Amino acid sequence: MTEIIKKKHFVRDLTAGAQVDDLFVLAERVLSHKKDGNPYMNVVLSDRSGQIKGVVWDSVEQIAAGARGGEIVKVTGQVSEYRGAPQMVIRAMTAVDPARTDTADFLPATDLDIEQLFERLQGLTRSLRTPWLKALFDSFWADPVFVAHFKRAPAAKMMHHAYIGGLLVHCLSMAVLADKVASHYSGVDRDLLIAGAILHDIGKVREFDFTTAIDYSEEGRLLSHIVIGLEMVEKRLQKLADVPREEANLLKHLIVSHHGAPEFGAVEPPKTIDAVLLHYIDEIDSKINAIREFMAKDATSPTWTAYHRVLGRHFHRGRSSTSSETGSPDRASGQMD
Amino acid sequence: MTEIIKKKHFVRDLTAGAQVDDLFVLAERVLSHKKDGNPYMNVVLSDRSGQIKGVVWDSVEQIAAGARGGEIVKVTGQVSEYRGAPQMVIRAMTAVDPARTDTADFLPATDLDIEQLFERLQGLTRSLRTPWLKALFDSFWADPVFVAHFKRAPAAKMMHHAYIGGLLVHCLSMAVLADKVASHYSGVDRDLLIAGAILHDIGKVREFDFTTAIDYSEEGRLLSHIVIGLEMVEKRLQKLADVPREEANLLKHLIVSHHGAPEFGAVEPPKTIDAVLLHYIDEIDSKINAIREFMAKDATSPTWTAYHRVLGRHFHRGRSSTSSETGSPDRASGQMD
Amino acid sequence: MTEIIKKKHFVRDLTAGAQVDDLFVLAERVLSHKKDGNPYMNVVLSDRSGQIKGVVWDSVEQIAAGARGGEIVKVTGQVSEYRGAPQMVIRAMTAVDPARTDTADFLPATDLDIEQLFERLQGLTRSLRTPWLKALFDSFWADPVFVAHFKRAPAAKMMHHAYIGGLLVHCLSMAVLADKVASHYSGVDRDLLIAGAILHDIGKVREFDFTTAIDYSEEGRLLSHIVIGLEMVEKRLQKLADVPREEANLLKHLIVSHHGAPEFGAVEPPKTIDAVLLHYIDEIDSKINAIREFMAKDATSPTWTAYHRVLGRHFHRGRSSTSSETGSPDRASGQMD
Amino acid sequence: MTEIIKKKHFVRDLTAGAQVDDLFVLAERVLSHKKDGNPYMNVVLSDRSGQIKGVVWDSVEQIAAGARGGEIVKVTGQVSEYRGAPQMVIRAMTAVDPARTDTADFLPATDLDIEQLFERLQGLTRSLRTPWLKALFDSFWADPVFVAHFKRAPAAKMMHHAYIGGLLVHCLSMAVLADKVASHYSGVDRDLLIAGAILHDIGKVREFDFTTAIDYSEEGRLLSHIVIGLEMVEKRLQKLADVPREEANLLKHLIVSHHGAPEFGAVEPPKTIDAVLLHYIDEIDSKINAIREFMAKDATSPTWTAYHRVLGRHFHRGRSSTSSETGSPDRASGQMD
Amino acid sequence: MTEIIKKKHFVRDLTAGAQVDDLFVLAERVLSHKKDGNPYMNVVLSDRSGQIKGVVWDSVEQIAAGARGGEIVKVTGQVSEYRGAPQMVIRAMTAVDPARTDTADFLPATDLDIEQLFERLQGLTRSLRTPWLKALFDSFWADPVFVAHFKRAPAAKMMHHAYIGGLLVHCLSMAVLADKVASHYSGVDRDLLIAGAILHDIGKVREFDFTTAIDYSEEGRLLSHIVIGLEMVEKRLQKLADVPREEANLLKHLIVSHHGAPEFGAVEPPKTIDAVLLHYIDEIDSKINAIREFMAKDATSPTWTAYHRVLGRHFHRGRSSTSSETGSPDRASGQMD
Amino acid sequence: MTEIIKKKHFVRDLTAGAQVDDLFVLAERVLSHKKDGNPYMNVVLSDRSGQIKGVVWDSVEQIAAGARGGEIVKVTGQVSEYRGAPQMVIRAMTAVDPARTDTADFLPATDLDIEQLFERLQGLTRSLRTPWLKALFDSFWADPVFVAHFKRAPAAKMMHHAYIGGLLVHCLSMAVLADKVASHYSGVDRDLLIAGAILHDIGKVREFDFTTAIDYSEEGRLLSHIVIGLEMVEKRLQKLADVPREEANLLKHLIVSHHGAPEFGAVEPPKTIDAVLLHYIDEIDSKINAIREFMAKDATSPTWTAYHRVLGRHFHRGRSSTSSETGSPDRASGQMD
Repeated sequence: MTEIIKKKHFVRDLTAGAQVDDLFVLAERVLSHKKDGNPYMNVVLSDRSGQIKGVVWDSVEQIAAGARGGEIVKVTGQVSEYRGAPQMVIRAMTAVDPARTDTADFLPATDLDIEQLFERLQGLTRSLRTPWLKALFDSFWADPVFVAHFKRAPAAKMMHHAYIGGLLVHCLSMAVLADKVASHYSGVDRDLLIAGAILHDIGKVREFDFTTAIDYSEEGRLLSHIVIGLEMVEKRLQKLADVPREEANLLKHLIVSHHGAPEFGAVEPPKTIDAVLLHYIDEIDSKINAIREFMAKDATSPTWTAYHRVLGRHFHRGRSSTSSETGSPDRASGQMD
Repeated sequence: MTEIIKKKHFVRDLTAGAQVDDLFVLAERVLSHKKDGNPYMNVVLSDRSGQIKGVVWDSVEQIAAGARGGEIVKVTGQVSEYRGAPQMVIRAMTAVDPARTDTADFLPATDLDIEQLFERLQGLTRSLRTPWLKALFDSFWADPVFVAHFKRAPAAKMMHHAYIGGLLVHCLSMAVLADKVASHYSGVDRDLLIAGAILHDIGKVREFDFTTAIDYSEEGRLLSHIVIGLEMVEKRLQKLADVPREEANLLKHLIVSHHGAPEFGAVEPPKTIDAVLLHYIDEIDSKINAIREFMAKDATSPTWTAYHRVLGRHFHRGRSSTSSETGSPDRASGQMD
Repeated sequence: MTEIIKKKHFVRDLTAGAQVDDLFVLAERVLSHKKDGNPYMNVVLSDRSGQIKGVVWDSVEQIAAGARGGEIVKVTGQVSEYRGAPQMVIRAMTAVDPARTDTADFLPATDLDIEQLFERLQGLTRSLRTPWLKALFDSFWADPVFVAHFKRAPAAKMMHHAYIGGLLVHCLSMAVLADKVASHYSGVDRDLLIAGAILHDIGKVREFDFTTAIDYSEEGRLLSHIVIGLEMVEKRLQKLADVPREEANLLKHLIVSHHGAPEFGAVEPPKTIDAVLLHYIDEIDSKINAIREFMAKDATSPTWTAYHRVLGRHFHRGRSSTSSETGSPDRASGQMD
Repeated sequence: MTEIIKKKHFVRDLTAGAQVDDLFVLAERVLSHKKDGNPYMNVVLSDRSGQIKGVVWDSVEQIAAGARGGEIVKVTGQVSEYRGAPQMVIRAMTAVDPARTDTADFLPATDLDIEQLFERLQGLTRSLRTPWLKALFDSFWADPVFVAHFKRAPAAKMMHHAYIGGLLVHCLSMAVLADKVASHYSGVDRDLLIAGAILHDIGKVREFDFTTAIDYSEEGRLLSHIVIGLEMVEKRLQKLADVPREEANLLKHLIVSHHGAPEFGAVEPPKTIDAVLLHYIDEIDSKINAIREFMAKDATSPTWTAYHRVLGRHFHRGRSSTSSETGSPDRASGQMD
Repeated sequence: MTEIIKKKHFVRDLTAGAQVDDLFVLAERVLSHKKDGNPYMNVVLSDRSGQIKGVVWDSVEQIAAGARGGEIVKVTGQVSEYRGAPQMVIRAMTAVDPARTDTADFLPATDLDIEQLFERLQGLTRSLRTPWLKALFDSFWADPVFVAHFKRAPAAKMMHHAYIGGLLVHCLSMAVLADKVASHYSGVDRDLLIAGAILHDIGKVREFDFTTAIDYSEEGRLLSHIVIGLEMVEKRLQKLADVPREEANLLKHLIVSHHGAPEFGAVEPPKTIDAVLLHYIDEIDSKINAIREFMAKDATSPTWTAYHRVLGRHFHRGRSSTSSETGSPDRASGQMD
Repeated sequence: MTEIIKKKHFVRDLTAGAQVDDLFVLAERVLSHKKDGNPYMNVVLSDRSGQIKGVVWDSVEQIAAGARGGEIVKVTGQVSEYRGAPQMVIRAMTAVDPARTDTADFLPATDLDIEQLFERLQGLTRSLRTPWLKALFDSFWADPVFVAHFKRAPAAKMMHHAYIGGLLVHCLSMAVLADKVASHYSGVDRDLLIAGAILHDIGKVREFDFTTAIDYSEEGRLLSHIVIGLEMVEKRLQKLADVPREEANLLKHLIVSHHGAPEFGAVEPPKTIDAVLLHYIDEIDSKINAIREFMAKDATSPTWTAYHRVLGRHFHRGRSSTSSETGSPDRASGQMD
């Protein structure tokens, strides 16, 4: 078995003066020429903690020939500072076989314990009472290739849960919340709602590529995770015995309609109580995650964030940002997310 | 003290042949003339259970002089049938002093126990830890005129919770759900979220008139429940000592933004985690209520409802409508709504 | 084999005084009561040529018990006139086993020769050069149940090609036009474009019920013809050998995107030259058909139609409606539609 | 009493070579490092006439410690030129107590005489005939803190009247125009319309901070000037005797509805003749001001301006820009604005 | 010369019992049959004061043959009452040569003195200082056919100024208001603005037919009043000497852009100060007129109107509707409209 | 006759080290100052193949005085490289009389043979059967000034056919496609449809200036090509005898409505079969051209293009980009475009 090369330092921790001999993703590379006609190369190196700019002044052509954009590279150099930001002056850089690296080093990933999250999710599917839904999840969980992808998939490229494990975090949070909502209103079909919470975005395991960077796959751009997810579910349903087709259509309708309205990608609007609820639970979980991640990264002021271009507003960080008293000191334990 | 006249029969139960001597709201009246030049009068009579058409053939002018539209009337007549629907032939009709009637007879009202709902709501406000929020609710609950209106107000004229007690049902359901959501996500300000759930629509106690019919008040049409509610809250806050203004603005922001987007009436979009959550909790509770009431009234088919004009779709009644198995047999107990 | 009962007269031809003993669809029935308390029943009878109102004055309860809405019925009665329109006074009406009728009698259908249209369509699929596309169509054409449904399916409930055979007429017209467009522009993939023209709406064979009336099926309302069509194509592709998945995704993208924009139901916008063209060819064929059918039914004036509510305008019938000279006397021959 | 430090030169007049020893707002500061590891600081200095970039090469850390962004600073340095624009090389910079400066030096302000504008506005409120409206304005004008803010408040951050005194200029112009429109149409309530013109944006005195820069206040972002303005008016109305509530609601409706439509922030659409007029008068005055200011700053060509991003078009400067003849030589005198 | 038949009574004044022998427009006619098979005819008769229903019981076929919809007819009959509304029982009805009638009898018309309005408008065009604009108006006013149409044209079919003379009322009101606005702001081109106010809708003299009913003309539906108006102005400009084309384009731009935004029919958005102003002046004058006419016709309540479907709200009639005090007793004199 | 100066090299072919003595358009020029106070000038030079940046270090003021932006200039200098892109160091630059240059050198132009395209277009107009349409085209083609402009006009500034000859390419392609569509559907007026295809954008010959750069003309910005085109057609129609006005309005309607909907600039929506078809044919031809030109310029990957900002998506290059097999090997011959 190949030996894995360990990454030693992460971008977030690099400061001026540091000597570097480590692995990164070669996220971007631009070959240019100085006024004297000699070449140099600007690059962007990334790992799961962030990005750093780099420059190659010597042996430029030789180094440029050794690595393409998107590859994992071994870099030797020193960190300096340029225009107030760290910049790596690169002396050597060569592509490395990804099989010899731990890809988790290169993409941002959830801080939560993925196995534990997955175990909680399986606990929820074991609690279902509908035989064909249990059989459907048994089929998914028994497929190791699917499970491996499912545990790693992100839920988005940029907006929310845009990291390894993001899909699992998102689906589990929604399923737990769905369980609470199902006990709040009568007339809710708990089994379908929880199944929908887990499966509504299932097509994202194929909509995205997430080896060295998170981006849309060919199939993802052409068909969307909604269509891919329907196909994944249907393929397994066909292999199960005794699936009531009317009920299966109600499950598939949850996938079809979870974006809420056609202009946001819903093929049909939600037409059952469960579909309406699933849409709002998805909205809540993705928006709250997006806003909290934006707040976490933003250092504009203790009270207000910078302007969020997509959501079109500044966000206020709440009471804790303006006063010392917190309204809810004891809520931390037991929270999902 | 005036003696209350008891209503004996409700419109829903009137069948052809019945003799009637009872109270109704004179919802509409149109005076017309027969071909022979003699007058007659078509009316619509209503009570909390529905509407019935009526006609006056004799003593028309005298009867017409005795009651105006919107008044509560005592009617003597007999139910016959016209074009397949019941019609009351009216022999006498006179206006009655509303003070001598039980207005609950004339408007649809929640089947739930209003006092019990209100007690649960007070339980929630007692659980708050923020002194000035507790003081604010103490101020509201200590005002018997306000409480009397708050217990009776509807939450809408037509779409959802459009009945006496509807506002209380809606706010309590939202507050209970808010409590669950606050324990699901970290970073939520439970006190503010629950206070927002209870107060976001508080202006509806003045936005609507709801004595003999539910309609917008003069003030409601000119100012909207958002502006009225802000005024009601601000007026009480001014009388409290030690209200931190920054925190009070966060509470008022929940009222300002709960419609979510300007095109739906939000003066500002939700700019805190709590405001975003409150908006979705409001959406969930009002939409689920609207759909369930539409399903309850609609008898088109056991599976699909008729087309819902405002929401723009047919609704499917779910698995229980297509199969004998219900996915969630034991969820009934403990549910809010 | 059961003997088929022949329909003798069609609604369009019934005039006052005619004696009727014939088959119709009992489109609507409403049981009412006269002032004297006796029952009567208003009905609407339909066949492929239109609708006529009817009334039952005698033996009402017995007749009402014999037939439900949506059934094919045998009716005995006489045509009279009521408020200027024909009305059938019904003496007897009993449900008939649909298997003993020719369902083509009851739904509007294309005037064109369906077998001939289908033969032309097969000619086009034989002209394709891509092996897996030819194999896909072979699979469809070799399935007699599918072919039988495909030949009868309508393309819509109301707007365009809303009649038996409408889907075939629409797809053939689009495929022929696609062939012309493919020869006009370079860079067009003729095989994919023609395949897309034939398959883009294929899910409509299951989206609609079209036995005695054209309406959405359960599955159609929950999933839409786009999702159903993708499933139908994918199921056959899985059984074929040597399907290049990248190319298959390009075909499926044509189905996914043919509505052009999300707000009109496109899951993804058209992302290939062929997808952009297919969308416009669909727009042209459906709009032109819708407008011509509206013009054909409308008798408002020789020049302008009445206001078209969905398209939001009056239509002008063109030069031939205002002058005797026609600009294009010899174009009739060889036209598709 | 503290002695005021006089500002001697304004940014607009600084040219290369000038020695500077003067007051500015430290609008921005970014601390960076040179390649040799030594720090430097880029700043932006502003005053009412504009902005100039600056750089600190020496004593960087000491200077950086002496002033924060947003503060008024005393700067010693020399103007040079960098990339074709003036740049100040700063030798010393220290924060100055704002109380010792004339804040009018630092923010753009109207060229008009504020006292004279205010006097004209008071003349209009004296001309009103409705006692409670006169009393309301008496209350506002008698509050020196309010009046001081009202005279200085801007009407916007960027689009129109975005300078000290802008709110007063805008309201007076609208009130004068409202007076003309009230005499043009019958059925207009002159008193309400003029009161609305003066009070519709009154909340902007608190929606904006405008000490050293114009920006939204905390309260402004959370509540909007509409809600703040309603609160300011209501608070004074409560202290007046004999205010007819129905009429007061009509005044408050003018504030509620002046943005015209919900998607532009109107809580309710204008529902009175006066509210409809006030909305258009506001549109006219803000748009005309925005366009004229854009034209004044833009030097693209004598005929056309550059593209206005928000309004989405180039503007043509009119006849005077293309010919020597002006259509209206004698209209200058007596104009408001 | 043909003798004009005088109309004696108007629909508004007809009451039950009246004998009628007078002229009307045969607005609608529907031929029906009674149960006994005999024909009867329902009609709608109209004149400038309103509409009345009528019925023909005898000699139906003969009477029906004598007049088509849209024609002016002489009717003999008697007014009775049906379902509470007047209905005319018609004994005879024959078409009349329109040349023998006063068409002003049949269409609603302004109550104002058209000649006096036109004289005021000419006064404004005489006040212009731009030679080619004066020449353009001279050309229009010197064409008696144009002037005759211009004096009669309506400004709309339904929404505002939808009566004979409405275009003139609308243009004069706008021109007077434009004059006031031009003196309020500097930088306004008074001559162009007033010319635009008078000419912006000039195409409506051909967009509408307004002989016996107001409806769109063939040309109006195909080209719109904007395109027709531009053609009318351009045709006259071509015949004038010394028209500066750049200035003429600024005038034509006022016609092109007066609807404000493309979605409301503006070919280009307003790109000059004058065009922006003209758009708002048009909005004000048409909306105020529409609302006042709606208020005048609506008798729902002294305070609120019924719901206005197009504008989407109820309107409040203002202070005078809720109190006895009017805020502006002396504004009546000198008002335009 | 003036001798034409030949351009020797094009921007696309300039590489570092090249000596230049050639003609360019001075697209932009910005005069700046170095730190030492000495001036320098940055410029952008363009020709039909693209743009190159340049810089003037010496004799700056003298050179700056010799040429204004937009002029054709003769430049002497040498190409170097700056930040990885070629940059011309300019030693001399003087304006050249455009009459002495071949303006085709400076603007991008179609590669097709303009005379041949025009000949094909005339062939189509000769095939028309409607006398007045033939006469109209005779009038256009007989005007050498118009024809010269028509052959050179672009169809857009940026989006599609944005090059010399683009309008002709676009109109011919549409007319040929219109001919095919006219033979596909019955009820199409071939003569009007082809005439509309050729004339719908005719106003673009005046909407754009296209001497040294493609930009909107004064008239184009104020009136739009729709209004200009209508004026051009109307002016010629007035000079023809025997033009049936109803038919001419149908032609003008094609120009009026070809943008399809008001929000995209259609003055009226398409109201004839021909107008609906023309709109879609225009959409197809402009979108396909825009996408193909975007694909041609974009080198992001062999399969997907970069994100298209205006159309809001990445485009896939189709099967040929992912496999060696092409579906349509023999379609190249005879294609229009």
